[in-house]
Amino acid sequence: MTTEEIFELNIESPDGELVRRSRERWDCVAKPIRGLGVMEELVTRIAAAQGKLFPDIRKKAHIIMCADNGVFVEGVSQTGQSVTRDVAALMGKGRSSVCVMAKDYPVDLFIYDVGINSAEVPEGLVDAKRARGTADFVREPAMSEEVCLAAISTGIEAVKKISAQGYGIISTGEMGIGNTTTSTALLCALNGLAPAEVTGRGAGLSDEGLRKKIDVIERGLTLHRGERAAEKISSKEEAFEALRCLGGLDIAGLAGVFIGGALCSIPIVIDGLISAAAALCAELMVPGVKEFMLASHMGREKAMEAAMRRLDLKAVIHAELALGEGTGAVLSLPMLDMALNLYSKGISFEEMNLERYERFDR
Amino acid sequence: MTTEEIFELNIESPDGELVRRSRERWDCVAKPIRGLGVMEELVTRIAAAQGKLFPDIRKKAHIIMCADNGVFVEGVSQTGQSVTRDVAALMGKGRSSVCVMAKDYPVDLFIYDVGINSAEVPEGLVDAKRARGTADFVREPAMSEEVCLAAISTGIEAVKKISAQGYGIISTGEMGIGNTTTSTALLCALNGLAPAEVTGRGAGLSDEGLRKKIDVIERGLTLHRGERAAEKISSKEEAFEALRCLGGLDIAGLAGVFIGGALCSIPIVIDGLISAAAALCAELMVPGVKEFMLASHMGREKAMEAAMRRLDLKAVIHAELALGEGTGAVLSLPMLDMALNLYSKGISFEEMNLERYERFDR
Repeated sequence: MTTEEIFELNIESPDGELVRRSRERWDCVAKPIRGLGVMEELVTRIAAAQGKLFPDIRKKAHIIMCADNGVFVEGVSQTGQSVTRDVAALMGKGRSSVCVMAKDYPVDLFIYDVGINSAEVPEGLVDAKRARGTADFVREPAMSEEVCLAAISTGIEAVKKISAQGYGIISTGEMGIGNTTTSTALLCALNGLAPAEVTGRGAGLSDEGLRKKIDVIERGLTLHRGERAAEKISSKEEAFEALRCLGGLDIAGLAGVFIGGALCSIPIVIDGLISAAAALCAELMVPGVKEFMLASHMGREKAMEAAMRRLDLKAVIHAELALGEGTGAVLSLPMLDMALNLYSKGISFEEMNLERYERFDR
Repeated sequence: MTTEEIFELNIESPDGELVRRSRERWDCVAKPIRGLGVMEELVTRIAAAQGKLFPDIRKKAHIIMCADNGVFVEGVSQTGQSVTRDVAALMGKGRSSVCVMAKDYPVDLFIYDVGINSAEVPEGLVDAKRARGTADFVREPAMSEEVCLAAISTGIEAVKKISAQGYGIISTGEMGIGNTTTSTALLCALNGLAPAEVTGRGAGLSDEGLRKKIDVIERGLTLHRGERAAEKISSKEEAFEALRCLGGLDIAGLAGVFIGGALCSIPIVIDGLISAAAALCAELMVPGVKEFMLASHMGREKAMEAAMRRLDLKAVIHAELALGEGTGAVLSLPMLDMALNLYSKGISFEEMNLERYERFDR
């Protein structure tokens, strides 16, 4: 795939009439108007994405993109880089955090090695390795155009394959030591934010570690964005360049997943900071893909808020999560099941011989 | 039970050493420090409540208290009062909103008629009816001391019975037309709040309906609290009086459930506004019971915030829910399952031969 091919993708908006009918269906269910609040909107988004008034999300997939980040050498993480490989290997064996959390819940994991810094692809992972991690973004662009495009393609192809197997929803996750640094750098670039104001402690940095991380992100922005670092990015070309220079293979892969969701009419659940950076990047490169996204949680990293605002999405879980692997996205799936149950099978006012509540808010 | 017997209940605080060990267990799991954020605290609260380092919540109960409110005649609701009876009857048949939502999820419902304005107790409900609804609080106290105490006892006894059957966690819900009015009035009294600032639209009032609701609450506060309406309540006696004069049988029943949780060492999940009013009232009447409570969601009714602050609890779901029946509490249960899975079965740093993350936040 070339950048031109990506920029020329044309995303059809979800059917407005179906959205209207979905909201009408919610108001028929015997409950207060907007009783399930944001959960109602999420179900309507799922219906709109699938193009079905009564969507089906029984079969669920969770995609995890694993990759290493060259900026690790600048000392932005508390752990060694080999933790990426070790945790990915655990994932492959079904023993990492997200696997253990979801062990009783029917979601199938698809784990991609999209650039772990290891000779071998860990067992149980899909081999999509194009590089052993990215380059250090304070010295040079993190990726070549070719490598960045390959990672995006990996995400798009993953969704095409999964969608063809009858899955109705896909949640997203990642693993990559140093990826709160790359995501924050990317979100600063996309939204014209000052690193000192939004950079967080990731997996748990000391005050000194945090200062170093801010400095590293500032240097990356200066090198790749120069005087335009404080400007918001709106063009497709600049969004791709920001991803290529400051992002990671995991983020590029996830951006592909969000694009793939729109191409395959399947809703994709955003997780935390890293996934949100990929989601915003996808929307800027391929306008319209955001209609196929669902928010799940608002993590404790501040840069995420700006991304959600720009995507016009509301996260329903506020639990200060910062685990990664898509744990927040997976936590939201049973809530979607429950809300969809009520939407699909709830008793109507008509069946109860009751008058409906009247809407006074529109 | 007399008020004295309630006020004399002595709640033993959860074991501090067990809390420390539980947090230590979380830090051993191979994940970033506090990676699951508030979910980690919730699991530790469950462990503390049960008095077990590795608690068991596989068997779950959901208690719903149904009752009518005399203040309904003041025109504070969009629907007829018979909706309480109709929805309770649906619950008894397993067809109301919360039942449909949770149909694929293993939670057992225990539904109490603690004062529906109907001659018969709907099929499928536990008969705990002591009155056909409360009196109109703008004219007289909602309940006599005897009736209020009976409803509290119903809640305590319900938990004792359920706890004896091996349940590990109980979520709470209610049904009662007019109960956002009673809960808001009660929370205004308990927290010294001005009704005009915190009264919400409940199941969906018009602007005029909202003005009427605020006026009704103000009149209730003036009648029962007089010049002390703007003062926070801290004494057991005044908390009971506020519940008796302004509350409802559903709220009193739920207050009993929260007290029962502490007596039986079983964690109780708060739902929205009405459940939070009951929770705060329980804590004021029987100090210490809050340690056995878990928050679930922050509803869209403003009076709830003050209750959560005073109980020092954080709700993880922010979805603008306003459905009732305990739907928000039930939505949070699968999240607790997943977090507890990781806590109980997550791989440790030691097993991975990795160094632990260091804590810099304490």
